[in-house]
Amino acid sequence: MAAQIYSGEKYASRRREISANLAKRPEFHDSKPLPFMTREEKILESSRKLTLISKHMNEIIDPSDKRELYHLNCEVLGIEGNPMALHGDMFIPALTAQASDEQQEKWLSRALRREIIGTYAQTELGHGTNLRKLETIATYDVDTQEFVLHTPQITALKWWPGNLGKSSNYAVVVALMIIKGKNYGPQTFMVPLRDEKTHQPLKGITIGDIGPKLAYNIVDNGFLGFDHYRIPRTNLLMRHTRVEPDGTFVKPPHAKINYSAMVHVRSYMITGQAIMLAYALTIATRYSSVRRQGQIDTTQPEVKVLEYQTQQHRLFPSIARAYAFVFAGAETVRLYERVLQEVETGNVSLMADLHALTSGLKSVVTHQTAQGIEQARMACGGHGYSQASYISEIFGVAVGGCTYEGENLVMLQQLARYLVKSAGLVQAGQSSKLGPLVAYLGAKSDSTSLIDRTPTPGFAEYVKTFQHIARKQTLKAAQKLFGFMEKGDTREVAWNKSTVELNRASRLHTRLYIVEAFVRRVEEVADPRLKEVLTDLLRLHVNYELLDVAAYALEDGFLSSSQLDYIREQLYFYLAKIRPNAVSLVDSWEFSDRELRSVLGRRDGNVYENLFAWAKASPLNKTDVLPSVDKYLKPLMESARASKL
Amino acid sequence: MAAQIYSGEKYASRRREISANLAKRPEFHDSKPLPFMTREEKILESSRKLTLISKHMNEIIDPSDKRELYHLNCEVLGIEGNPMALHGDMFIPALTAQASDEQQEKWLSRALRREIIGTYAQTELGHGTNLRKLETIATYDVDTQEFVLHTPQITALKWWPGNLGKSSNYAVVVALMIIKGKNYGPQTFMVPLRDEKTHQPLKGITIGDIGPKLAYNIVDNGFLGFDHYRIPRTNLLMRHTRVEPDGTFVKPPHAKINYSAMVHVRSYMITGQAIMLAYALTIATRYSSVRRQGQIDTTQPEVKVLEYQTQQHRLFPSIARAYAFVFAGAETVRLYERVLQEVETGNVSLMADLHALTSGLKSVVTHQTAQGIEQARMACGGHGYSQASYISEIFGVAVGGCTYEGENLVMLQQLARYLVKSAGLVQAGQSSKLGPLVAYLGAKSDSTSLIDRTPTPGFAEYVKTFQHIARKQTLKAAQKLFGFMEKGDTREVAWNKSTVELNRASRLHTRLYIVEAFVRRVEEVADPRLKEVLTDLLRLHVNYELLDVAAYALEDGFLSSSQLDYIREQLYFYLAKIRPNAVSLVDSWEFSDRELRSVLGRRDGNVYENLFAWAKASPLNKTDVLPSVDKYLKPLMESARASKL
Repeated sequence: MAAQIYSGEKYASRRREISANLAKRPEFHDSKPLPFMTREEKILESSRKLTLISKHMNEIIDPSDKRELYHLNCEVLGIEGNPMALHGDMFIPALTAQASDEQQEKWLSRALRREIIGTYAQTELGHGTNLRKLETIATYDVDTQEFVLHTPQITALKWWPGNLGKSSNYAVVVALMIIKGKNYGPQTFMVPLRDEKTHQPLKGITIGDIGPKLAYNIVDNGFLGFDHYRIPRTNLLMRHTRVEPDGTFVKPPHAKINYSAMVHVRSYMITGQAIMLAYALTIATRYSSVRRQGQIDTTQPEVKVLEYQTQQHRLFPSIARAYAFVFAGAETVRLYERVLQEVETGNVSLMADLHALTSGLKSVVTHQTAQGIEQARMACGGHGYSQASYISEIFGVAVGGCTYEGENLVMLQQLARYLVKSAGLVQAGQSSKLGPLVAYLGAKSDSTSLIDRTPTPGFAEYVKTFQHIARKQTLKAAQKLFGFMEKGDTREVAWNKSTVELNRASRLHTRLYIVEAFVRRVEEVADPRLKEVLTDLLRLHVNYELLDVAAYALEDGFLSSSQLDYIREQLYFYLAKIRPNAVSLVDSWEFSDRELRSVLGRRDGNVYENLFAWAKASPLNKTDVLPSVDKYLKPLMESARASKL
Repeated sequence: MAAQIYSGEKYASRRREISANLAKRPEFHDSKPLPFMTREEKILESSRKLTLISKHMNEIIDPSDKRELYHLNCEVLGIEGNPMALHGDMFIPALTAQASDEQQEKWLSRALRREIIGTYAQTELGHGTNLRKLETIATYDVDTQEFVLHTPQITALKWWPGNLGKSSNYAVVVALMIIKGKNYGPQTFMVPLRDEKTHQPLKGITIGDIGPKLAYNIVDNGFLGFDHYRIPRTNLLMRHTRVEPDGTFVKPPHAKINYSAMVHVRSYMITGQAIMLAYALTIATRYSSVRRQGQIDTTQPEVKVLEYQTQQHRLFPSIARAYAFVFAGAETVRLYERVLQEVETGNVSLMADLHALTSGLKSVVTHQTAQGIEQARMACGGHGYSQASYISEIFGVAVGGCTYEGENLVMLQQLARYLVKSAGLVQAGQSSKLGPLVAYLGAKSDSTSLIDRTPTPGFAEYVKTFQHIARKQTLKAAQKLFGFMEKGDTREVAWNKSTVELNRASRLHTRLYIVEAFVRRVEEVADPRLKEVLTDLLRLHVNYELLDVAAYALEDGFLSSSQLDYIREQLYFYLAKIRPNAVSLVDSWEFSDRELRSVLGRRDGNVYENLFAWAKASPLNKTDVLPSVDKYLKPLMESARASKL
């Protein structure tokens, strides 16, 4: 099963080898539980490990394999970020994509060797989503051939970039380029921030950490302000764009140069989110088969809480989603690679389809992941609330994904724009021009669903029902938008009056895709035992998801009341059927105890004694009597006793 | 409006006076932002304030008025708990309810004077929900007339009680009482834990803090183990029960002595949750009218994000819920007081009704509150993720309510038991015996809803539709349960196969009650302007909530497709209509900046400069170069540079 999850036996087995290798290297393990450390201690601990990784990486992984590096980081550094996370994820890719060959020779090589540490600074205090309104300016001074970086007001401060606050000494900075009074829009510049020797901020640079966050607190997200800070003209990244010494601007050959980078990041995000959901579910499912509470048969001992239908309903549909997400993620990554090849040959037709899809996936997957993690935490009862469960930290990290890399409701609108365009084609009788991922919008619906008509209905009937729902909502929401425009609203005003319905269409389109990706994967599985287990999980998935969106199909009679009852019965049937496989389904993700960092999620199930050991080691128990008691509570009680005398 | 929220002008105006008084007392203010403190620092800070409150409380509030004390605590101590929270909330009430007059003279007076600090220890490491299976034992030794408290295995450790770990020197402990080999079930004992002078744990006591949690980290939730620890026989709390020196057990006169305490706590919890939801919405709504991002009319400046329909949809239905919850909470408290009076006169008919209702309310309100707070946080975009927003802390505290005082899914089942019993009465043709809160279960449904039949349909039509839905699901779920039993399942097995559907019925019953409470309140409002604003909010509420559960009514044709469209149009109409009043609707809760503790939620709207000031003051910015950089990152870069040479 691990090979299904990790797209092949090779990586699945490399993961195991890496974990086994690390198990024998105690210096790579957490020196104490992360929840016991202050932010400063966590950063110190993470920096220690970064040094170790830098030194010994080649003994453990193939550093050219990104997935191996990812797994190493999960095991050693964990999910809360690290002081050089953006160096590899953003700084080096930015230099690779945007620096000229000459610039790469100068900076990229140093970055790759870690002679310098860098990040990518785009978002500002006042602007994140609306990039066109960024306020940091880079004014060209022809006389000195320098750009003058400046932060004209407080909202123009760079704000949020990871590792900007304390760790990096360089950044690729996005600023509005002004030449001879003309605004050339946002451009990227290589900017030294700190003295390479002392690491002190350079003159003209205001820099620091933005303070504690919900999670990700090992990352020093930073602020950055410029006071007429000068950099040479040649620090403008000039792979695609250029400024001559005299200030002449040479345009890039084509504009959408960053389009594929977004698709790339979002495709991988989906897999990363699936893993975090699977972390939480592994913890909760294992714990639920250890925790005993209450009786179903009063003559028998207390039952494992996983026997309760409510607990199964809380966890199993999310287990199905974690599988669905990882399958959809893998498919999207493959699709992305195919599109890249096609782009090479000049065929860009699928790119818009894929860009729209990944926008929707990013939004739906992060939202459902956060929901699933929270349910997993609550499934652990009171102990889920303890940081010993580690689920609250997993939640905090995962839920950040709802906002970064494109705020979710904005992402849904990116997909909605594509859907509206597609609905327009359908309306105009040009369905043949629809992209492959939206071709179903041009098809005719059957008059009713057939999900309950055969003894074992095929998944195709479910897919048709999801298609009917997504199609109906897409065409209806688009019609609503067009209706407002016909009545005289501008497109923007009409859009704003229709956004909630448009976003509903985006979600339904995305959820259809996730179901389809799951169906396609199950159809590919050869091993019969594996296929059976995954088929059960898929049956749970389609029934659970369909029940959730059934109102759209009940409304027009596509689904009947008795079909809804059928869906419910199927749902409860598969909850019970999956119960015996539940622990295996989460164990198949093969997370080591070190990676999970959860006392509740231990593979050996020795939860209670380890909770006690964990608690005893926690910081407040260093002394029997806290300073707060000596200083305040004891005097409070003593004075009450004395005043009575 | 504040008088509506706080059940009368008197308390609303006292709140204002208390806030104004505290504004002039800087020693009562946070000495620095709480997110900058370690747990130990927060506990120290909170203990400092407790001493101050103890000293000056009488100058600020009427200490006999619980609501005034609550507001003082919200302003001064905040939501993260305090080292003496359980002393007032649980220890004193437990002694009041369960200690005999003689015992009260001995201990309650000392507790009230704060000569001792205590808590209430019931939950154990292995058992929370299933109290009958608690494992701590108190064995009576006739020879010495002592109870021997003992923790026979690790799962028997007391675990979770607030302030048990470090602050308290006494606890009321629940343990299974064993006399001459016979188990008399859980009883309560007054137990000294720490030396009154030194505060060191007494011999035979293992005690400590259970470690960091998702939130509430100013509370030292603790563990407690006994090693054959002896207390006098007279430490058994003997108001209702008694053990004679020879070991004779004298039973309490009636068993359900604690029933009303649960109802009491849950009634007040609803109001507390409403306030936390309102905190988050105040922050998000204010910030959304400061934050400008994107344009709707491209010839105009960027708009406040509150102009976006998606943002309104994220926030306004939750604003309506916060009002609905506070109204439902107030009504429940009044109902509780009425029931108490009736109980005095021997009439207990309403108690079961109310107990069932508060179980459902506790579950639905905490769940929807947590959801609403998360949406409010995400509505603040990236800055919502910063602890400067404080919303993540509010979420962490509020979401604890989903688990403590009865796990939510278990709570729903308590209500479901009552609903099933009621459904049984309906089935048996004994609808006249139904309790007042479930009387609608015996009524006949109309054949269709009439919500769109008149130009301005009354709320009664909506209530009828919610009643139809709740009735249908209750009767159907009960039928499912009865069906399994008829086929031979035990009640417990049948229950477990039906729980998800039964819990759905409980939610629908509860949501009906919330709608009704909102309707009743609006009908009572005299002031026409106030009534108009609240009526708009209620219209938003009924349409939003009905859309959410519409599938139940579409299924059987009670609602038609065109009525669903009507509901949607009403929803979008009222989102737009409420927009101009949105800030007033949250301002009406009258939270001071000190109480909100949020940079984003500031009343003056000076968000950006204060975010910058907050960030600069945060702990990581004490030094320009972090120890982690000096120790690890600088050497890392230096060695890379050196090895190149």
